[in-house]
Amino acid sequence: MRPAQGGKQSVTRMVSRYLPILDWGRRYDRAALSGDLLAAVIVTIMLIPQSLAYAMLAGLPPEAGIYASIAPIMLYAVFGTSRSLAVGPVAVVSLLTASAVGQVAQQGTADYASAALTLAALSGGFLLLLGLLRLGMLANFLSHPVISGFISASGILIAASQLRHLLGIPAGGDTLVEIAAGLLSNLGQANPATLATGAAATGFLVWVRRGMKPALLRRGVPARMADILTKAGPVLAVVATTLAVRALSLDRAGVAIVGAVPQGLPPLTLPGLSPALIRELALPAVLISIIGFVESVSVAQTLAARRRERIDPDQELIGLGAANLGAAFTGGYPVTGGFARSVVNHDAGAETPAAGAFTAIGLAFAAAFLTPLIHDLPNATLAATIIVAVLGLVDLSILRRTWAYSKGDFAAVAVTILLTLGAGVEIGVATGVVVSILLHLVKTARPHVAVVGLVPGTHHFRNVARHRVQTDPSLLTIRIDESLYFVNARFLENLIHDRVADDSPVANVVLMCPAVNDIDFSALESLEAVNRRLAELGIGFHLSEVKGPVMDRLKSSHFLDQLNGRVFQSQYDAWRALTGAPCRSAGE
Amino acid sequence: MRPAQGGKQSVTRMVSRYLPILDWGRRYDRAALSGDLLAAVIVTIMLIPQSLAYAMLAGLPPEAGIYASIAPIMLYAVFGTSRSLAVGPVAVVSLLTASAVGQVAQQGTADYASAALTLAALSGGFLLLLGLLRLGMLANFLSHPVISGFISASGILIAASQLRHLLGIPAGGDTLVEIAAGLLSNLGQANPATLATGAAATGFLVWVRRGMKPALLRRGVPARMADILTKAGPVLAVVATTLAVRALSLDRAGVAIVGAVPQGLPPLTLPGLSPALIRELALPAVLISIIGFVESVSVAQTLAARRRERIDPDQELIGLGAANLGAAFTGGYPVTGGFARSVVNHDAGAETPAAGAFTAIGLAFAAAFLTPLIHDLPNATLAATIIVAVLGLVDLSILRRTWAYSKGDFAAVAVTILLTLGAGVEIGVATGVVVSILLHLVKTARPHVAVVGLVPGTHHFRNVARHRVQTDPSLLTIRIDESLYFVNARFLENLIHDRVADDSPVANVVLMCPAVNDIDFSALESLEAVNRRLAELGIGFHLSEVKGPVMDRLKSSHFLDQLNGRVFQSQYDAWRALTGAPCRSAGE
Repeated sequence: MRPAQGGKQSVTRMVSRYLPILDWGRRYDRAALSGDLLAAVIVTIMLIPQSLAYAMLAGLPPEAGIYASIAPIMLYAVFGTSRSLAVGPVAVVSLLTASAVGQVAQQGTADYASAALTLAALSGGFLLLLGLLRLGMLANFLSHPVISGFISASGILIAASQLRHLLGIPAGGDTLVEIAAGLLSNLGQANPATLATGAAATGFLVWVRRGMKPALLRRGVPARMADILTKAGPVLAVVATTLAVRALSLDRAGVAIVGAVPQGLPPLTLPGLSPALIRELALPAVLISIIGFVESVSVAQTLAARRRERIDPDQELIGLGAANLGAAFTGGYPVTGGFARSVVNHDAGAETPAAGAFTAIGLAFAAAFLTPLIHDLPNATLAATIIVAVLGLVDLSILRRTWAYSKGDFAAVAVTILLTLGAGVEIGVATGVVVSILLHLVKTARPHVAVVGLVPGTHHFRNVARHRVQTDPSLLTIRIDESLYFVNARFLENLIHDRVADDSPVANVVLMCPAVNDIDFSALESLEAVNRRLAELGIGFHLSEVKGPVMDRLKSSHFLDQLNGRVFQSQYDAWRALTGAPCRSAGE
Repeated sequence: MRPAQGGKQSVTRMVSRYLPILDWGRRYDRAALSGDLLAAVIVTIMLIPQSLAYAMLAGLPPEAGIYASIAPIMLYAVFGTSRSLAVGPVAVVSLLTASAVGQVAQQGTADYASAALTLAALSGGFLLLLGLLRLGMLANFLSHPVISGFISASGILIAASQLRHLLGIPAGGDTLVEIAAGLLSNLGQANPATLATGAAATGFLVWVRRGMKPALLRRGVPARMADILTKAGPVLAVVATTLAVRALSLDRAGVAIVGAVPQGLPPLTLPGLSPALIRELALPAVLISIIGFVESVSVAQTLAARRRERIDPDQELIGLGAANLGAAFTGGYPVTGGFARSVVNHDAGAETPAAGAFTAIGLAFAAAFLTPLIHDLPNATLAATIIVAVLGLVDLSILRRTWAYSKGDFAAVAVTILLTLGAGVEIGVATGVVVSILLHLVKTARPHVAVVGLVPGTHHFRNVARHRVQTDPSLLTIRIDESLYFVNARFLENLIHDRVADDSPVANVVLMCPAVNDIDFSALESLEAVNRRLAELGIGFHLSEVKGPVMDRLKSSHFLDQLNGRVFQSQYDAWRALTGAPCRSAGE
């Protein structure tokens, strides 16, 4: 009961809310350490080729991918709430980065790398801001099928964009048509040695995914070891093709290789912050932040549910914001929580975010000492890594499933996929979001409405069109199955106007509101207009089954004072009060 | 029963749907003619100064305002459905035109006038397209308070922008701050003769609005004549100040005058259609179309309701689209149905759209013969006409009324007003629309949810927090008061997860759905996730009071097959089936 103490406690609680590390760090023990260390080794091995490959996809030099996996992981370990999430470059965000930065600078220039840092800084700042404002719910404004369609379409686009590295030909483009045109027009220049290397790497990686683990198990390799070897598959491809380049001098046969990669820890970098650059990259940064956040949170929530843990979406925004700011100042580019690496981290037994910190140390070691070894690594191998990884993201069954369930959801997915493939990632996902919101508005704009009557022998009222119910010619009861707000306010006005014009003996109209969860100001004005018009016609206007919160709201206006009728708690009360005439069946 | 005949009839019906003139034209008689002729005379007198003034507001030469009132009125008379709507230049659309065209060309140049034609053509094409697609409902996506706030703020902005003509000083700007800064910095150069003219005109016009009719009535002028004279007030101001300029040579004292206006019928013009111009004006054209349509339809609906007529919003789109295309090809600029002139037209006894056609003939006569008479008309008089007209639009009580009823609606209005004044009309209204939609989404993202129990002695279930009800520890019943869709899908997942974790003896969860009007695909996936998770915990998952259309939808998915529980028609059925234990009161 001492306020000073209470104040101190609430500061502690505040600090540990924003620094989850203080919570799990205090209870860290030897068992957690051994789980985390093993997970870190496995994830590090997996991340080295993946980071190089995604940097290539983003149009950046390979070391940027490694750098983007070091400081961001560390920072997420301090600020993030997921025990299993592994943060770093991911396919979709790399593609979005290439698309955004490609609009302000030429690939391969210093401006390009600097703009990628700016994009990471803007994205980090935006995520941090959302987190401090506790706006994690914004992620919910993207519908599941739209995200799913977008990720599938991006996967196709990414795979197509990497084919040029497998063929050893130049071909760019932001849309499937552009990419296909580029590939077809240069197909004649395909390099046989590159194609052979790429095909071998792709074939091997597909086998690693599908057939390696069963094959190892059949040969008596213990399950745990088979798992680790499978995760190391891409490293095997890297090593084998690098050795092949060296042994056969494939680079002289035209196989493009990674070349010299700077050796050392991540540099300290300053993102370009000119107003013109910020203006051009602000919108893409918002898009990347939201897409990255949604992807990351759904991975984190899926993994947390497996262990009955919870993650805090608002704190996740802060964790990802810090990670992106880290990327911006250490030579990286926008990052987020990746699906594949997080699942591997989780399955390998990571107990706490310390596993991420150990992974970062492993990658820092690789950056400091191992980069000379990848000088002869063929780009085709990296392209194969990307293609095999992203084709796992493509799942077009969402089209079939939404078609069966709801044409509106199907339309949103179809538009997202078509525009992502046909007009680029940014237009695709932005249109998907807008279409899904518009479809929701359109759906609620013409709500389901039923004229209802009494189910004989009960207190229930049902649709006269679906059930055999009692009605009274002087009483029109309309049940509206939607909240009343600006989008459907005029619909209601017109509806009652039409029904009363059609139905001359009506003396009372009851609006039955059990499904009306809100009445906004526009709808209030419409109800006032209906009330005035019915009053002029000498018709009573009543409400029934108005919910508590809606009634509270109405009491704060003058509507109830002016109402030319009553508000009944139940429709049955309204029926008893307003029907003097003997009842008749609607069927008669 | 002859199909050929049926085909012919449906063609006729089709034609008369798109050409309402065939409907009313057939029944045109002498009584309608005399009503229409009188209304046309009054409206013509009123429109001459108004058209000149709004053209000045749009930054166009005065004749553009007259031209914009001729062909558009004729075309609306053919395609429109309102009997009373008078189409032509209006204040808000003129301001929007000045703002949009000012971004692509310099006022006073031929490019400026040509871009105004392009804006009218784009706007007309867009309205026509919406009309053919029957998308009149799109107008409902603007909430009443946002429109109301926007019109008030525009009125303030317009009045402020016209003060420079009253003072005879140069001052431009798109926002209130810019306009005020311009006025203050040039205040020293105010022209005394201009100020005197402007003040006299303003004072007279205010008296015309407020005091003229009562004064005439007191002097025994018949009511009808007093009405007509009041409508002619602005013409009196025009005549008096023009004569004053001539008599006192005020133009030599620095009073800006209209000057030479070409004499003749509206010219045939071709809007500029370069791709660059179209790209720049496309978005403003969409905005102008929608604002103009919303304003026009609400005027038309208000007037139609007075005579128990109906208008067809989709056909209105076609009528306004044709009117704007007419403006584009006859030297005008974007037009819409105006409030003041339509009310005057209606009150003067216009019976059919022919009144509009007669008005157009009157204005064509004015354009052909009367323009030399306005050579000496002071701009200050036109500015006074505008100021007095638009201040009638300003009604800031919307702020007080929305504040009392709903903070969300208040926020949308306040943002619209502040941004319209502070950042310009386009940003203001666009942000208002986005904010009102986002607020709706945010509201539905955290829906009202109640744990419910049985009201003793009834079949009703109510919120345990608001009512004294029976509950059973093994049964958790949650009523969710909102449709389930992507914005709140995850909210539901988390809610049930939390409640079950808190409430260990729960054996069954019932989701009570009387207020669930829709379940979209995202929400279906969430329900599937909830069902899986509860099944793992050995807890039954049931639904009750699912609406017909929602149930139909669920039957098209696999959800009901996988459901680890039942769907009950009423919550009371669920209660009887799932509670074996003796009931206890929640209060005990």
